[in-house]
Amino acid sequence: MSAKVRLYVDHPLGAGQTVPLDRDQAHYLFGVMRLSVGARVALFNGRDGEWQAEVAEAGKRGGVLACLDQSKPLQLPPDLWLIFAPIKKARTDFIVEKAAEMGAARILPVATEFTNSERIRQDRLQAHAVEAAEQCGGTYVPEVAELQKLPSMLDHWPAERQLMFCDEAEVGQRLFLDVAQVEGSAGAAGPWAILIGPEGGFSDAERKRLHAMPQAHVVSLGPRILRADTAAVAALTLWQQRLGDW
Amino acid sequence: MSAKVRLYVDHPLGAGQTVPLDRDQAHYLFGVMRLSVGARVALFNGRDGEWQAEVAEAGKRGGVLACLDQSKPLQLPPDLWLIFAPIKKARTDFIVEKAAEMGAARILPVATEFTNSERIRQDRLQAHAVEAAEQCGGTYVPEVAELQKLPSMLDHWPAERQLMFCDEAEVGQRLFLDVAQVEGSAGAAGPWAILIGPEGGFSDAERKRLHAMPQAHVVSLGPRILRADTAAVAALTLWQQRLGDW
Repeated sequence: MSAKVRLYVDHPLGAGQTVPLDRDQAHYLFGVMRLSVGARVALFNGRDGEWQAEVAEAGKRGGVLACLDQSKPLQLPPDLWLIFAPIKKARTDFIVEKAAEMGAARILPVATEFTNSERIRQDRLQAHAVEAAEQCGGTYVPEVAELQKLPSMLDHWPAERQLMFCDEAEVGQRLFLDVAQVEGSAGAAGPWAILIGPEGGFSDAERKRLHAMPQAHVVSLGPRILRADTAAVAALTLWQQRLGDW
Repeated sequence: MSAKVRLYVDHPLGAGQTVPLDRDQAHYLFGVMRLSVGARVALFNGRDGEWQAEVAEAGKRGGVLACLDQSKPLQLPPDLWLIFAPIKKARTDFIVEKAAEMGAARILPVATEFTNSERIRQDRLQAHAVEAAEQCGGTYVPEVAELQKLPSMLDHWPAERQLMFCDEAEVGQRLFLDVAQVEGSAGAAGPWAILIGPEGGFSDAERKRLHAMPQAHVVSLGPRILRADTAAVAALTLWQQRLGDW
């Protein structure tokens, strides 16, 4: 019988490997999920795929799981970054969750001129990415980066990374995906990033700089204005089905 | 100067038309948004496009707006239904909001065998659809239907309406969109519906019945399991960019 509980652990996984549990993990497995010795748990660590494990010891403050068999190989997502400007707390959480479900490899919060929220809790967002990976059956957890300023990110932009840039000013332009032009070309196979603008839009200076980048591909997401969290899922869908692992 | 506030009103709009405000609307415009006589408001009613209006009278319990010029024609979305099984309150709200932003014409909550939530507040969900339309610049508000049972919905399924059916059991099958096969054919131009399964998945009986429908097109949404709200946006994106108004 396959495990119903999936847990991310920061520990090597392999045949015969035992995995010690910390207090929070023990509370979740034995307190909340009411598992006892002998119960099955699916484990992943972002490196060794998914393993079925058995509860070997269960306590209030800790416990031990014993790895049995590998149930999934490691499946790395495509080399895709999701870059977004933080918004209200609940919606920022949603963007991180959605990016993990949709298969982004890295999640990068960025401060733009019109970004309202100048701070993020990186540790809390990283925990959301872990939880989303546990839920969606993935074997990989995207890294959530610390907040950076957009100009400094662009100063250090990797030459080979293509950028799908969702410009609110293009709403209703029916411009659609010139990404299609990249399909089959060198750019298609290489690394990519998707940039979702802030709710206030980009400034003129930002827009000018982005449009001037040789890696930039401007994309319109239909005739209605999408909220940032909706736009993130829509852009990830377009990218994944054309260039990604769907 | 174009109005910053967009308001849905259930009242005819046209040149010279005046629009009375109820207590809630007056509270929002004059209390929350602090507009006064002479201020601009953008109005839409789902039928007459978007109109710029001016505050003619402002009071605590009501007020009057006067229509000036039409600023957008009515833009009806494609004839697309979004059908989904209600989940936790916040995520159900999100699905309705996303469906309105993404341009669904009707939103139909459906109870399946494994649906957790057997009740919805139709009026509250309809209010969410209105708010999303106000935010996204649309001139149309999708109707939120009352909760129906899936078998009874399928008993009365319109013969000409194609159904894009997102089956969790297809995750990782890379089946992708046989909707592509419909492109350019008669089915592409006709009415459509997207059905998002409940978090517990469809029952075997439900799956069998859906697969047997001549209108059904099974779609996989990539190798990870998506939450229902993520799946709704992803499916709407695929549909809109292939067959819709993007």
